[in-house]
Amino acid sequence: MPFTAPTAEQRFALDHVVRLGELAATERYAAASDDVIDAVLEGAGQFAAGEWAPLARAGDTVGAKWTPEGVVMPAGYPEAYRAFVEGGWGTIGAPEAFGGQGLPFAIQTAVLETLGTANMGFALCPILTVGAIEALTHHGSPEQQVAYLPRLTTGEWTGTMNLTEPQAGSDVGALKSMATPRGDGSWSIKGTKIFISFGDHDMADNIVHLVLARTADAPAGTRGISLFLVPKFRLDAEGNPGAFNDVRVVSIEHKMGLHASPTCVLSFGDNDDCIGHLIGAEHGGMRAMFTMMNNARLNVGLQGVQVAEAATQKAVDYARERIQGTRDGQPTAIIEHPDVRRMLMRMKAQTLAARALVYYAAGQVDRAGLGDAAAKDRLEMVTPLAKAHATDLGNEVASLGVQIHGGMGFIEETGAAQYFREARITPIYEGTNGIQAADLVGRKLALSNGAAFAALIADIRAEAQDAGLIALVDACERVGRRLQTADADDRLAASYPFLNMLSIATAGWLVERLARESADDAPGETRRAIAAFYLDQVLPEAMGQVAAAEADATGLYRLSADAF
Amino acid sequence: MPFTAPTAEQRFALDHVVRLGELAATERYAAASDDVIDAVLEGAGQFAAGEWAPLARAGDTVGAKWTPEGVVMPAGYPEAYRAFVEGGWGTIGAPEAFGGQGLPFAIQTAVLETLGTANMGFALCPILTVGAIEALTHHGSPEQQVAYLPRLTTGEWTGTMNLTEPQAGSDVGALKSMATPRGDGSWSIKGTKIFISFGDHDMADNIVHLVLARTADAPAGTRGISLFLVPKFRLDAEGNPGAFNDVRVVSIEHKMGLHASPTCVLSFGDNDDCIGHLIGAEHGGMRAMFTMMNNARLNVGLQGVQVAEAATQKAVDYARERIQGTRDGQPTAIIEHPDVRRMLMRMKAQTLAARALVYYAAGQVDRAGLGDAAAKDRLEMVTPLAKAHATDLGNEVASLGVQIHGGMGFIEETGAAQYFREARITPIYEGTNGIQAADLVGRKLALSNGAAFAALIADIRAEAQDAGLIALVDACERVGRRLQTADADDRLAASYPFLNMLSIATAGWLVERLARESADDAPGETRRAIAAFYLDQVLPEAMGQVAAAEADATGLYRLSADAF
Repeated sequence: MPFTAPTAEQRFALDHVVRLGELAATERYAAASDDVIDAVLEGAGQFAAGEWAPLARAGDTVGAKWTPEGVVMPAGYPEAYRAFVEGGWGTIGAPEAFGGQGLPFAIQTAVLETLGTANMGFALCPILTVGAIEALTHHGSPEQQVAYLPRLTTGEWTGTMNLTEPQAGSDVGALKSMATPRGDGSWSIKGTKIFISFGDHDMADNIVHLVLARTADAPAGTRGISLFLVPKFRLDAEGNPGAFNDVRVVSIEHKMGLHASPTCVLSFGDNDDCIGHLIGAEHGGMRAMFTMMNNARLNVGLQGVQVAEAATQKAVDYARERIQGTRDGQPTAIIEHPDVRRMLMRMKAQTLAARALVYYAAGQVDRAGLGDAAAKDRLEMVTPLAKAHATDLGNEVASLGVQIHGGMGFIEETGAAQYFREARITPIYEGTNGIQAADLVGRKLALSNGAAFAALIADIRAEAQDAGLIALVDACERVGRRLQTADADDRLAASYPFLNMLSIATAGWLVERLARESADDAPGETRRAIAAFYLDQVLPEAMGQVAAAEADATGLYRLSADAF
Repeated sequence: MPFTAPTAEQRFALDHVVRLGELAATERYAAASDDVIDAVLEGAGQFAAGEWAPLARAGDTVGAKWTPEGVVMPAGYPEAYRAFVEGGWGTIGAPEAFGGQGLPFAIQTAVLETLGTANMGFALCPILTVGAIEALTHHGSPEQQVAYLPRLTTGEWTGTMNLTEPQAGSDVGALKSMATPRGDGSWSIKGTKIFISFGDHDMADNIVHLVLARTADAPAGTRGISLFLVPKFRLDAEGNPGAFNDVRVVSIEHKMGLHASPTCVLSFGDNDDCIGHLIGAEHGGMRAMFTMMNNARLNVGLQGVQVAEAATQKAVDYARERIQGTRDGQPTAIIEHPDVRRMLMRMKAQTLAARALVYYAAGQVDRAGLGDAAAKDRLEMVTPLAKAHATDLGNEVASLGVQIHGGMGFIEETGAAQYFREARITPIYEGTNGIQAADLVGRKLALSNGAAFAALIADIRAEAQDAGLIALVDACERVGRRLQTADADDRLAASYPFLNMLSIATAGWLVERLARESADDAPGETRRAIAAFYLDQVLPEAMGQVAAAEADATGLYRLSADAF
């Protein structure tokens, strides 16, 4: 599937949503000069279009295969992964001390967006590695960092996150995997994990599993969970991959999409010979995992942007080429039909909105990393919005992409269906969107005694000019304040509609700013037209959710479970 | 996938939406007694659950296969189809003169709903046969009727609709297939048709293709199109299938879903030996096709109901069984979590709404057939709503069904993904939902000089009690009146949001009536709870679309096609 990286739009969002100039003015990010940023975006675009995009269809049709010796990727993937390593595309945001470029997370976000737009399933692999790098950077011991970070940074080794077990999905605290001290400071790991993306593959020399497990006599629930580093191959005296560490791929899932991303069932310690190393404090696993998960949530939100961008490009191409019906008596490409335009404008507008949301959050990661406490609050506040709303938008846009293609959209060879299928996982993994909504109305509305929410509302209000946006932010404030003191059921009953409202208000604020700060040139005119469509036709839909956001839980519990 | 036919809900909708009692009071439908209706609904439910539902997964995983000798259905399908024929399930609505039961179309709708809820891809086969029966009943010659209707009615032979060609999708008038007189009253057919559902299979003795083609010197566009009856096997002197009629399956499509339904490329007359028979008048093809298409549109809307019902049943089962998290300190099934309840209530409410819309339209088919001109207007008015909105709801509900299953929803073996994939074709075929919206704001708003639209508004207003519903119908009237005099681009620009608003108003009216007329018993309490959720939380969303419905086309044309 040919694609062109939207580098100009990415750059504009980095400048005007992230305010990258402010970051580049700090000592830490002094390397993020205009030239470097442009070179990185352009280079990533060319690499992704040239090396990764051509493999996207085979990723779907062939997919990763399980064998008794491990997972085998489709032809071309190992080579394309090596090209990624050699190009240094994994090093963008990693710390310089371990071979990274130390560029802002926001730049890394743009690069991952491009890779995932080219090949969403494939890009999941570096996304997981980024999570492992972050967990080790923040919680690993100096020895662990020296041993693992350099080769995770280059991508020679890849990372995984191991949370889920059959009985412990959204309820991570219910997990049962066990870690037992071996007496030498290391731990013996035993248990089964499911839904492990890139849990095994043949593209890298080692795989670094970050595994949540329980130690003996640990408290119940999430308070008793510890995080362990469990390499596929133990490191030998020289620090190279050596003996097999008793981590087996039991099977891979037969999924609706993302077939290039092997979703593994991993069995640790079948032969009681799986060695793990504690990361951070015993029983401190959830804290370490949250470091990883929060940014992983943004990266899943980013997958919403990826699929939206990819589906839109494909639909625009088709709509320009497909001749059907007439306009002013002449045969016409369907892009000229009003309802097709409506769908395409909506796709463009929702893509713009999704990117703005995720980039905004990414910028707060960088500011929080610089010690800005308000940015940390902003990041926590918008993380559920970026994860849930951007993935919902990715699904909506991918569905519109199928619709634009008409009957051809339902035929697999066309490729529009692949986006539709693949998008569907994004509202589920890394905390379902329902979990995000619960996080929003629970932890996030209460954050800093409500000041984090008040700050977001104030931020929007300080800039908002569109009357619909102003009305929406008023409604968000009113509903949010009610939910801050509502009881748990009422809060949760309203959580999803409220999440939608607040996401759209936040996106509307940023989209309006993008239009306002656009120059009087052709890209600026295009952006203003798309932003106007968002504000005039998409944003008002949020007001339709106020009724549900204002309802309490009574309507949900009129039925007994048996009556459904 | 186990399922239970929702016979009580079907019966209630037949009684209170269709007002079946009024139909049964007519001479024509005197056979539709309470006992007969209950027996038909119950029997269809048992047949579908016992014979067709168990084949649904294999329909997806194995699918229909193309071979040089023709299309081969998955194991069990020919036998299950034979059981359908032997049970008389194809005869419900067909004319008694040709072996049908002559029951109301609304009853047939309920039976087809049940069959399709059990196995959506399979049920497409009888749906297409119903279309062929209707076209022949209304437009066939007495000889054609005698020769073909009896065995189409039993289902021994099946029917197809052949409209689409590669260059002629939504623009049917662009088709190029040719019909040339053979001098004996028959015609020689030549051309290629695509997207022909059940264009070939191994379950019936003959396949009756209804084919749109152009005759020599015919006017351009749809005015020059004629309809031909083209059997796979010509009838011999005894009226039995005889010589092969030069209709070949060139290939079948590799689709995102409905793999049990072979979507064929058919080549007519490769050897100049394909004989067709004109149905109705030369150049009268579109009129005859519209007879078939209008009811086919309702039957596709019905597929929205099918997939919504099936996905909801599956999600409810899972949510009752899946233990995750706690409530009041105790482990709980996820159905007790507020946001899961919100999703399930939404699924139930949207299913209720979709069924009400489609059944309402079906009831107007029967009234129109009794010569009620106002009912004919009502039918035409609500057909685009029933087709487009019910299929959109089917998609929404199937997506929620995946979400309820969490990570398991993305795993194919679970089955929730199948509904999600299969639903996606329904907004596309039988006239894309965009075409339905165009039909609504074009032909339908203008129908009977606007009286048809005014009558629908008046019907809703006469019963509506909910304040939100009343506000919505006011908005619909205001927007609809503006669109009646708007220019074409402005009308089409607003068509989809307006279709949504009017569909929700119409569904809201019927849902409110279902609640109002429910008894004070357990099913009545359940229905009222679901209806209240619809009116309180779903219907208000329609007001969020008013801004888009009130916008003109300017915002869609600010960009040139190149600027997208």
